[in-house]
This record gives sequence, C-alpha cells and structure tokens, in this order.
Amino acid sequence: MPEFTLGEIASAIGAELSGCPETVVNGIQSLQDAGPGQLSFLSSGLYRQYLRGTRAAAVILTAEFRAECPVPTLVVASPYLAYARLSQRFSTAPVATIGIHPTAVVAPTASIAASASVGAHCVVADGAVIGERSVLYPGVSVGAGSRIGSDACLHAHVVIYHGVTLGDRVTVHGNAVIGADGFGFAGSPQGWVKIAQNGGVRIGSDVEIGACTTIDRGALGDTVIGDGVIIDNQVQIAHNVRIGRGTAIAGCTAIAGSTHIGERCTIAGAVGITGHLQIADGVHITAMSLISKSISEAGSYSSGTAMGPTRDWRKNAVRFLQLDSLFRRVGELEKKSGPDHNN
Amino acid sequence: MPEFTLGEIASAIGAELSGCPETVVNGIQSLQDAGPGQLSFLSSGLYRQYLRGTRAAAVILTAEFRAECPVPTLVVASPYLAYARLSQRFSTAPVATIGIHPTAVVAPTASIAASASVGAHCVVADGAVIGERSVLYPGVSVGAGSRIGSDACLHAHVVIYHGVTLGDRVTVHGNAVIGADGFGFAGSPQGWVKIAQNGGVRIGSDVEIGACTTIDRGALGDTVIGDGVIIDNQVQIAHNVRIGRGTAIAGCTAIAGSTHIGERCTIAGAVGITGHLQIADGVHITAMSLISKSISEAGSYSSGTAMGPTRDWRKNAVRFLQLDSLFRRVGELEKKSGPDHNN
Amino acid sequence: MPEFTLGEIASAIGAELSGCPETVVNGIQSLQDAGPGQLSFLSSGLYRQYLRGTRAAAVILTAEFRAECPVPTLVVASPYLAYARLSQRFSTAPVATIGIHPTAVVAPTASIAASASVGAHCVVADGAVIGERSVLYPGVSVGAGSRIGSDACLHAHVVIYHGVTLGDRVTVHGNAVIGADGFGFAGSPQGWVKIAQNGGVRIGSDVEIGACTTIDRGALGDTVIGDGVIIDNQVQIAHNVRIGRGTAIAGCTAIAGSTHIGERCTIAGAVGITGHLQIADGVHITAMSLISKSISEAGSYSSGTAMGPTRDWRKNAVRFLQLDSLFRRVGELEKKSGPDHNN
Repeated sequence: MPEFTLGEIASAIGAELSGCPETVVNGIQSLQDAGPGQLSFLSSGLYRQYLRGTRAAAVILTAEFRAECPVPTLVVASPYLAYARLSQRFSTAPVATIGIHPTAVVAPTASIAASASVGAHCVVADGAVIGERSVLYPGVSVGAGSRIGSDACLHAHVVIYHGVTLGDRVTVHGNAVIGADGFGFAGSPQGWVKIAQNGGVRIGSDVEIGACTTIDRGALGDTVIGDGVIIDNQVQIAHNVRIGRGTAIAGCTAIAGSTHIGERCTIAGAVGITGHLQIADGVHITAMSLISKSISEAGSYSSGTAMGPTRDWRKNAVRFLQLDSLFRRVGELEKKSGPDHNN
Repeated sequence: MPEFTLGEIASAIGAELSGCPETVVNGIQSLQDAGPGQLSFLSSGLYRQYLRGTRAAAVILTAEFRAECPVPTLVVASPYLAYARLSQRFSTAPVATIGIHPTAVVAPTASIAASASVGAHCVVADGAVIGERSVLYPGVSVGAGSRIGSDACLHAHVVIYHGVTLGDRVTVHGNAVIGADGFGFAGSPQGWVKIAQNGGVRIGSDVEIGACTTIDRGALGDTVIGDGVIIDNQVQIAHNVRIGRGTAIAGCTAIAGSTHIGERCTIAGAVGITGHLQIADGVHITAMSLISKSISEAGSYSSGTAMGPTRDWRKNAVRFLQLDSLFRRVGELEKKSGPDHNN
Repeated sequence: MPEFTLGEIASAIGAELSGCPETVVNGIQSLQDAGPGQLSFLSSGLYRQYLRGTRAAAVILTAEFRAECPVPTLVVASPYLAYARLSQRFSTAPVATIGIHPTAVVAPTASIAASASVGAHCVVADGAVIGERSVLYPGVSVGAGSRIGSDACLHAHVVIYHGVTLGDRVTVHGNAVIGADGFGFAGSPQGWVKIAQNGGVRIGSDVEIGACTTIDRGALGDTVIGDGVIIDNQVQIAHNVRIGRGTAIAGCTAIAGSTHIGERCTIAGAVGITGHLQIADGVHITAMSLISKSISEAGSYSSGTAMGPTRDWRKNAVRFLQLDSLFRRVGELEKKSGPDHNN
C-alpha cells in the first residue's frame, strides 16, 4: 500500500489544502465508500448528496463545494483530472520482472531492450524490436519485423502480426489482435478471390487499445491510429482506416474499411461507421448510431429510435414501414384543407 | 459412448415411463435426427409434426402428447428441462488430466488444489489460487492474487488479470478476458489522462461466460457478477457494472460503465445499455435495442425499427428525420378541421 | 521483394499488354501511391481522376480507360479481380518453417502432416489431425479429435475446441474461437440448467474466418459453414447455425441459434439476425440491420433510421413512440375530410 501525506498530494495536483499536511492517506475511493485514511473527490454536482456524510480523510473538490465538506479539502479547478493523475499512485497492478522469461521464444534476429520484460510463453519473431521498459505479459506474440516502442504494456495473449509499429507508451489489453488481414475479396464466377493484405498497421504514441479489439492491416498502405487515441474493448477497425489524434472510441464500435476519422472525436459504444467515409475533427457520435454518410462539420450525430415498452414499440415499429405513405396522406389532406396551412 | 437404460433415465428425471425399462440408450437427438438407441424429446408444439415419424428409442414429452407418440414415452412436466439435465450424461467433451502440465508456469506462491488440472502453457501468477477439481485448458493465464473457486472450467487462452475472484462452478470460454482495465480517462488540454483502474472483478458461483467476452475491472471498487448469471460470447461488460443473480445476457451485448442490472433479467443479443443506469429485476430487453434510460419496472423493452426491403426502407428512413415536422403539420390540420376530432 | 516482368503479369491475368514486356515490377499500389517499378489498377470510375497523374510502371484497367492512361496498360475485363489475383504474388507475409517447434505440445495420438508447420507453444490434443502444408502460428490450440485439412493457416492463438473439422485452404485469424459451447440453458426454479453442447462444428473448404470471431458448436448436431464462405472479424455465429456456400459476412455481425442462411448472401457489418430463421439464397442485408423474420426472396433488406444531427434526431426519436397514434389521428382527419382522398 503506497502512502502519501496530504501535503505531498496537494503539491502533486497543485491543490490548495485546508487541513493538516502531515495526514497520511493510502488510497482513493468514492465519497460513499472512502474510509479513514482514504482520499476522495467530488467531480460533479450529482454526487454532492454524498459529501456531507463522507468519512474520507480529505476530499478533492472545487472551491464552490468547500464550505459543505465536513473533512479537510484539496481545492483544484478540475477534481476529476486531479483524481485521474493521482489514481496511478495508488495502482494495484503487479510490477513486471525485467528480463526474458526462460519459456519465451525470441528469434535471434529480434532485439529486446535490456530494461524490457518478456513474460512466460511469449513469442517474438524475426527482426522484431521491443523498446525500453516495455512489458509483454504472458503469451504475447509479436510478428516478424514489428516494432514496439518504449514503455509499452502488452497484456496477456495480445497478438501483433508482422509489419506493425507501435509508438511509445502504448497499452494493449488482453487478446487484442493488431495486424490481421483486412476483409478484402474480389468476386469471381468461381467464388471469392482473396486480396493479399500487403500493408501494415502504424500506431502512434500514448495510445490505449482495449481487450479483444481488432485492428486490421492495410490492403495497400497502412491502417493508421494517431497519437493519443484511446480505444475501448471489442472495437473493430478495418483495413486502411485512419483515426486522428486524441479521438476516443468506446466499446464494440465497428469502423469499416478506408474510413478516415478526424482528431478529438468521441465515438460512443456500439456505433457502426460504414466504409470510405470522411468524418471531420470534433465529431461526437451517440451510442449505437449508424453513420452511413461522411460528416463535414463538428457536432453531435445520432441515429436510431427511442426505447419503450415492447408492446407499444411493436405498434410503432410496424408503422415505420408505412411512414412514407403517411407523409403522402398528410400532403393530400393539406391540399384539400386549402392554402392557409403553415407548412 | 455412455449407455443408460430407460429405467435409469426415468428415475434420473422423475419421468413416468411407458415402455421396457431395460431398453438401452446411448445418446439424445432431435425428433427428426434421433435413430434407434437414441432418446429424443418434444419441448414445444412446434415440433409436434415430427413426433409421428420419429425413430427414437423413446421420447420425453408431456402427458398431452403421449397418445400421439409411436415409441416408448417418458412423461414429465418440462421436457426441455429434462433434456437439459440428461444432456450432461451424454457429453462429448474430453476429460482433463489431473495435475500440472510440465510446460505450465506456476509461481511458487500460487496455490493449486491437488485435484485441479493445469494445462500446457498455462501461467498462474503470484498468490493466485485454483480450487478443487478446477480445469485450466491450455494457455490460460491467471494474474497475481486472483482466486478461482472449485469445479471451474477455464477454456483455452482465457485471460484472468490480477485481483479477480471467481466463485465455484464457473465456466469461462476461450479467449474471454476478465479484469482488463475499464475505459476511464479524464480530458486535459494535453490529451486524455488515464485513470488507473484499481478495483477488481468479483464473479459469483454457477456463472457461465462466453468466448471472447470481456469483463473489465472496476475503477474504484469492483465490477460484480452475481450467482447464476449466464453470459454468451462477445459480451462487453464495462467497469463497475453490477449484474444481479440469475440474469441471462445473449451474444454481443454491450453494457457501459457503472450500470446496475437487476436479478432474473433476460437481455437478448446485440443490445446496448448506456452507463450509470439502474435496470430493475425481471426486465426483458429484445434484440439489438438501445437502452438509454433507467428502467424501474419489470417488463419487456425495445427500440429500433421493423425491417423491410431496402428500397422501401430507404424512403421511410429518410422520412424519419421529418417526423417531428409531420406531427406539427397534423396538429395544424386538426386545428383547422375543428374541435370534434378524437385526439 | 519478388519481381516480375510485365509480360509475366500479362500472361498471369490474361491481359492485353501495351508496353514493353521486359519491364520489371516489384509491387502493386493505388494510382496515387504507386511509384516507378510498381503496378497499379483502375477498378472504378471513382478513381479515374488519379489516372492521368499516376507514376505507376503500368496500370491494369478496362479498354474504356486505355486512351487516358499515361503509362503502359494491361487491359482486362475485371481489373479488381486481376488485382486480387496478383496481390498474392506480392505478399509481405513471412513464410512459416516446416516442422514442429520444440515448445509445441503434441499428443502422441495426434497426426501432423510432414509438410505442416506447428509453431511455438502450440497444443495439439489427442487424435487431432493437421493436414499437408497447414501452418499453425504460435500458441494455436487444437482440441481432441479435431481435423484441420490441408493448406490451412491458423494464426496466433486461434482456439479450436474438440470435435471440429475444417476443410482445405481455410484461414483463421488471431484469437478466433471455433467450437465453444452454444448458449443453451433451460430455466428451472433453481436457476439456469446448462444444456451440454454435444454437437460439433463443420467448416468447408476455402473459408476465411476473421480475428476474434466465434463459431459455437451445436447442441444436437453440428454448426455448419459451407465452402467458400468468408467471415470478417468479431462475428458471432451461434450453435446450429448453417451458412450456405459463398456467403460473405462483414465484421461484428451476430447470428443467433439455429438460423439457416442461404448461399451467396452478403451480410454487411454489425447486422443482427435472430434465431430459428430461414434466409434465402442471394439475400443482401445492409449495415447494422436487425433481421427478425425469415426472408424467402433474394433481394436487399434493411432496418434502422437515417442519421442526423443529435438535436434534430432527438425530437424525431421521441416522436417515434407516438407514431401509431399519429396514424390514428391522420385516419380521423381523412374520415372528416370526406370520401375523395386518395388513400
């Protein structure tokens, strides 16, 4: 359990502390769950109701809520960002052992930095490069000629095919697959003819990739993920997609081939984006929307219907297929009702 | 091939047998496909048409259909449940070898029950515990301090991170990932700041988890899956989600962070549930619905539209974006048409 | 880098060459990106704008565009198909080493063809068969009694359960899982009772299966994938599904149990198909549609709404739940407006 004084915490996040700087804390928790010795934070008015009853050792909050807090306070402009920055100090993750595990299979032509950790049963193929302080958890497979930068963290059973490059400080979670073949086939009278996917994948620095996410290699040229992109679990990114820097993609979203997505976009969960589109910078897409046309202006976009009880929904869903005819019926009524209606 | 007499079968499922109790059966099949020596069952009136022609050695059914059955019958209240209970006796799954395979890498501080099976190339990290009779198929990775109860079955290449606990009789299918980081980041002018995911995952007993399903660890506190929950393939369960006991979740459903789902819910395939919601006990959600608000009453809920030929659908789908204006047009017509309309 | 003369290329794809047959090429690229020494192709009028400025050594195109091409031409009927056929000659994939890696664990009763390649940390269980020239990348697990035909390519960490058969020339991408249990449970007062999934999976020849795709074993009888079927990443195929020959399924599509899909269908990405349906041959389904009824005629089918800015969309989405009442209001107006309206 790491321990810090409130004085150290205040200095780490640039907070104004009211309370004893020598008080020691050893964890961070929600307002409801924090006990003595633990920090907490108030990041939104929604949780204000829990402030008065908190048993935390101290609370990170904005000046607005300081007077209501029954325990010592750490005042900052953005409590959520301060929490994010502190959270790493209380990490519960195990520390990897430097060096190559005796059961790992490393090609003689691969290059592993002396400060890297290559876990049990990893396989690093010909010409692959693993950078300084990078950690490969058990069972990671790195294909021929692929290059992993420094300070990477590849969790258990990640599969990196050949010809993939990752920048620095990239985290990839368990069972993600980077560099599998894009889904490219040409039709012929004898059936589908596979198009060899001869491009690679280029991933920038400071990227996070979730568990069971798949990022395919390009057909011609590379699939490209920009710096600072964050990608959740079970996301599918097809061949020759390009994602601009700082874009965030939530779980189960699927992006079809050759679509280019701008910078600083936020794409919610289970979204579908069809192929060969251009999405501008600063676009936000709400959960489970289908994006089937290019978007040239920043802003928020959606598709789908509202939810309701199935019995009501079923009546309305069937009506959906008669919608165009309803518009024509209303037009007819308007014609009959005379020229003064306001549409 | 295991063999049982009809007498043994009748006694195992509490059935009333009409037929010779010494007849031997060695398998169970559908009414159409069952051959001599095989049991079958009629679980729904839909399959009644196949009853007269069946070649099964005996059929499990309700009393209602006994008279129509040309072969010996086993009468029970619920033939489908009886079939479920018998199906395990005719399992085709291979039996695991007790003990630790010489290629497995087990930390000296890990504890493996003597009756457990740890397959080839498995990795069990520091302080992990594997309970009695639990089976780890090849390539399973169990992180530091994680605890697997008794009678678990972890199929090939399952990844369990650190700080995860599984109860007893839990089955996890191939390439599922339990305990990867939740998708938590705070925005900053310099880009996304990762929030360390310092909670764990707690999974109850009698739980089934499908292939390539991902269950993330909590940010603060744990992600919790209750007893008797069944989860299909490629389901995504985000950090700090809680699933109540006995709930069933079909394939490709995605549940966003901090949502709490009640007990005995049934969630169909490819459903999306947004974050921070409360879903009551006994809620049913139909396939591919987006649930974006809390649900406080049991019942069935849906979203989406009916399907149709693409040409018709396209006309209606475009009309969807003019729906609000149509409502205003109709309101205008109603105003003009006088006070006696019934809305 | 493989090298070919334009004469060899012309002969390989049956093209009419205008240009020197001795010119050597060593790659294939898009019209914009091709440099000297590289082939290119014009597969659609959409890219015609790039033809005049290309620096390619030669361009594969139809006779229609020959006059506009500034460099040597290879005229064929289908440039895209010609590109597909040539792409394999310029493959960048590493070549596997024949033989069994010393870290692989192969059961004494398994049978591995002499020309096959079994990579590091692979596990091949009792009675499994690996055909001629088939390649198992590192960490592949093949269950008891499963049979892999000839010329297969199983990428890293593919999991094949017991009782699965693959035909010849099947490619399976990283972390795909074939043969996990179908999601079959019977309800009981004591909770869900698991139905043993005693069938297997039968996959034809010339099949491609994407990364993290899951194909479950049958409950009774097998799940069946026909010859020439191509399946993208993260597709979920439930127990006892049957897919007809030549059908293509794009990423993240989910097909529920016992549904039968015809031949030569094309199913776009993120589609959901509910269980126990019959889908005819030659059906096309557009992206993210939910198919909840059987389809008996070839043609294109869809569901969902158009996308729009979230602010507009929200107004319309809410209106969706009042659609049936709107139809009744319009009917009322039509009644009042007299007998002459045209609906």
